[in-house]
Amino acid sequence: MTPSVDDKSLPPNHKELMAEAVAEACRGVECGDGGPFGAVIVDNKGNVVAKGHNMVLVTKDPTMHAEMTAIRNACKALGKFDLSGHTLYTSCYPCPMCMGASLWARFDAIYYGATAQQVRLDDIII
Amino acid sequence: MTPSVDDKSLPPNHKELMAEAVAEACRGVECGDGGPFGAVIVDNKGNVVAKGHNMVLVTKDPTMHAEMTAIRNACKALGKFDLSGHTLYTSCYPCPMCMGASLWARFDAIYYGATAQQVRLDDIII
Repeated sequence: MTPSVDDKSLPPNHKELMAEAVAEACRGVECGDGGPFGAVIVDNKGNVVAKGHNMVLVTKDPTMHAEMTAIRNACKALGKFDLSGHTLYTSCYPCPMCMGASLWARFDAIYYGATAQQVRLDDIII
Repeated sequence: MTPSVDDKSLPPNHKELMAEAVAEACRGVECGDGGPFGAVIVDNKGNVVAKGHNMVLVTKDPTMHAEMTAIRNACKALGKFDLSGHTLYTSCYPCPMCMGASLWARFDAIYYGATAQQVRLDDIII
């Protein structure tokens, strides 16, 4: 990942947060919940408020992508639907559904670990 | 709504299904759940398998748009994440998040009652 902003504006644990998003993706695969995608949401001090991984298989719900799961977990934890002041770390560039949800959640920033091409999402439909 | 396909291919209760999506939108507003948006999902015989309305306010979750709620309800009712063979009726043209979710759900068709412009979504952010 190559941050598009000055490193000075990034939280001190920036790299660890992305590593945690990737670790969350691994956890989701290990327990058979869904595809290899993970996400972490942090406040403006870099504190983790929620995590999530792809849960399409276990929930039988096509909307349960990693970013969506993390957004729902964060909103539940914070008791509000407006996540401005927060940042999303996701292991892979969000699909249109998840990017739309991220915009509705009003994140201050989104960082992704890999492009869809890099993870060879050959079966991507949208 | 002006169907883009031959009327002969539409279910016999096509107009009633869209009216039900609009009625679902009204119900959501009346009970204070969220914005004025409703959706209905039907099988290939026109039988309703799930409904949903915007529940952003009551759930404090920005992803709980009408289409998303209906998709989740349908998947729960049918026990599967693949809604091919089904059609979505929604009171308003889906936002990018909901269109993305609808593509992941693999609907055979989507019918919408109004454009975003027609319902004056002046505060739309995406």
